[in-house]
Amino acid sequence: MEMENIMKDKASTIYENAVVIDGLIISKWGGDLFREMQQSGLTAANCTCSVWENFSDTVNNLVQWNRWFREFGDHIVKAESVADIRRAKDSGKTAIVLGMQNTSAFEDRIGYVEILKTLGVGIAQMTYNTQNWVGSGCYESRDSGLSDFGREVVAEMNRVGMLCDLSHVGPKTSREVIDTSTVPVAYSHCLPAGLKAHPRNKSDEELRYIVDKGGFVGVTMFPPFLANGVNSTIADYIAAMDYVINIVGEDAVGIGTDFTQGYDRPFFDWITHDKGFGRRLTNFGEIINPAGFREIRDFPNIADAMADAGWTEARIEKILGLNWLNLLQTVWGK
Amino acid sequence: MEMENIMKDKASTIYENAVVIDGLIISKWGGDLFREMQQSGLTAANCTCSVWENFSDTVNNLVQWNRWFREFGDHIVKAESVADIRRAKDSGKTAIVLGMQNTSAFEDRIGYVEILKTLGVGIAQMTYNTQNWVGSGCYESRDSGLSDFGREVVAEMNRVGMLCDLSHVGPKTSREVIDTSTVPVAYSHCLPAGLKAHPRNKSDEELRYIVDKGGFVGVTMFPPFLANGVNSTIADYIAAMDYVINIVGEDAVGIGTDFTQGYDRPFFDWITHDKGFGRRLTNFGEIINPAGFREIRDFPNIADAMADAGWTEARIEKILGLNWLNLLQTVWGK
Repeated sequence: MEMENIMKDKASTIYENAVVIDGLIISKWGGDLFREMQQSGLTAANCTCSVWENFSDTVNNLVQWNRWFREFGDHIVKAESVADIRRAKDSGKTAIVLGMQNTSAFEDRIGYVEILKTLGVGIAQMTYNTQNWVGSGCYESRDSGLSDFGREVVAEMNRVGMLCDLSHVGPKTSREVIDTSTVPVAYSHCLPAGLKAHPRNKSDEELRYIVDKGGFVGVTMFPPFLANGVNSTIADYIAAMDYVINIVGEDAVGIGTDFTQGYDRPFFDWITHDKGFGRRLTNFGEIINPAGFREIRDFPNIADAMADAGWTEARIEKILGLNWLNLLQTVWGK
Repeated sequence: MEMENIMKDKASTIYENAVVIDGLIISKWGGDLFREMQQSGLTAANCTCSVWENFSDTVNNLVQWNRWFREFGDHIVKAESVADIRRAKDSGKTAIVLGMQNTSAFEDRIGYVEILKTLGVGIAQMTYNTQNWVGSGCYESRDSGLSDFGREVVAEMNRVGMLCDLSHVGPKTSREVIDTSTVPVAYSHCLPAGLKAHPRNKSDEELRYIVDKGGFVGVTMFPPFLANGVNSTIADYIAAMDYVINIVGEDAVGIGTDFTQGYDRPFFDWITHDKGFGRRLTNFGEIINPAGFREIRDFPNIADAMADAGWTEARIEKILGLNWLNLLQTVWGK
């Protein structure tokens, strides 16, 4: 009992001092959520600013983000560099990395990649579940691979310093992006198919392939992709991370929760239908996050759970955020 | 004769060492023009990237500018700060300040002001010739003044650091922008009505008013607004500057040529019709720039002409660029 308390105290200190980065949050943004992110000790998060939107609607989302950065400047800051993230840690705020879960906002114009990077978008997923101009998604019945335009997009993202995310991308397209990119790419939020077969989960071979090529794996805890589903606990989430670490090592793995906090039915209907309003692609039913990690406010628990799993302090720090920081430094060059 | 050569040598040295800034160019952009700007010793220029365009078409123009910055990086650099302009001088390149001659690109969305500033737009004219959401133009039959939305736009431009240009703006709207803005505003390219009555020319009172409130006057040489029209010479242009300086002093005046080099009829049809395709607003006929200053390559002649007019070295340096530099430093804050 006393031993356990000492461990918990230590985990808590590690957490407080650590750079804590969440590789994917797509929650209902607003003041309360930003305050919760800050108070939970989150140093930075890849926050989704576009899913099915075209260029114009994505810019309108960025306009809203600019308003939030002004209105909630006590809680959050815009992050366009690793230096911005480190400054957020020093000032006790949460650094927001604007990320897109699709390349729909690039439309058919390669020049929009640089425009959106200039406006602060640091991460973009190549496709969201289905085929687009760039490639195919993980729910597409046939993955046709990376298109010729997609190759241009990868090269342009490499040039301007925008991370290629492959979480919802089809296996063939993912492999071709990994092969095409001249800088590391990431699954920002995925789970291993070795623990549960699912179109969104990645095989051992896929996990190995991306990391062998210098890439990165953020591990999600989205219950439909976990073996225990809505009955999962935070220990199951740590076990999934351990599964990935056993395959790819502890230097290229991080957190990517996929918190969808605060959203109601219309939002889930929108993200689970093709292009927002087309055919239904998936139906997750009720989302109950793992016990002990139900909400963003539970973030500090993750360090306890890592300690409980017997992780070293070094491993905890790497997975909490240092690995993400290294990846972003490499891709962004700043 | 010998005396004159010494003066010319001196003027040429002053020109070579000076920061030379043109407050308005709207020429047909491309590699040859950029080379000519660089080779003429132009340190910086406010280059028009939007006239009648909406947001989306303006962004597409900025995409094209991004391409030019990459392709012609030996000649031009994008300038978003006075430091960028000074670096351009040091490296012998021309700094491009992206400017809009209208607020049509803001559409009805105040948030687009910050978006366009982030994309590099450092100067915007409030209206182009006719009424828009913000206010009225100099060719509008009735100037209704600055709208309530226009007041928001001025405040937002002040906040993000974008210079308010009033050259083509109506007199009442201009006066209200001058009164509303918390930082200096400019006529980037105008001529005195005291030398020729014209809807585009500014009265002595208007010139005095803007400068009394901390503002700025860039002087154009667009022949239809000069008393001698297409028969003008570079000396007429300098005389127009002297006229303005006599009213407002030599610390708030600069160059704003309005070079339209390389354009043909369809371009002039587009800019002289309301919204590009509406009713005809003006008909300038053939544009023949003042003898001695017909093309951008003639830029060095301007220092000779200033010396010929008996200007001191200090005045030449101020009007060539130092005054513009001070204004931009104040408005941009960097």
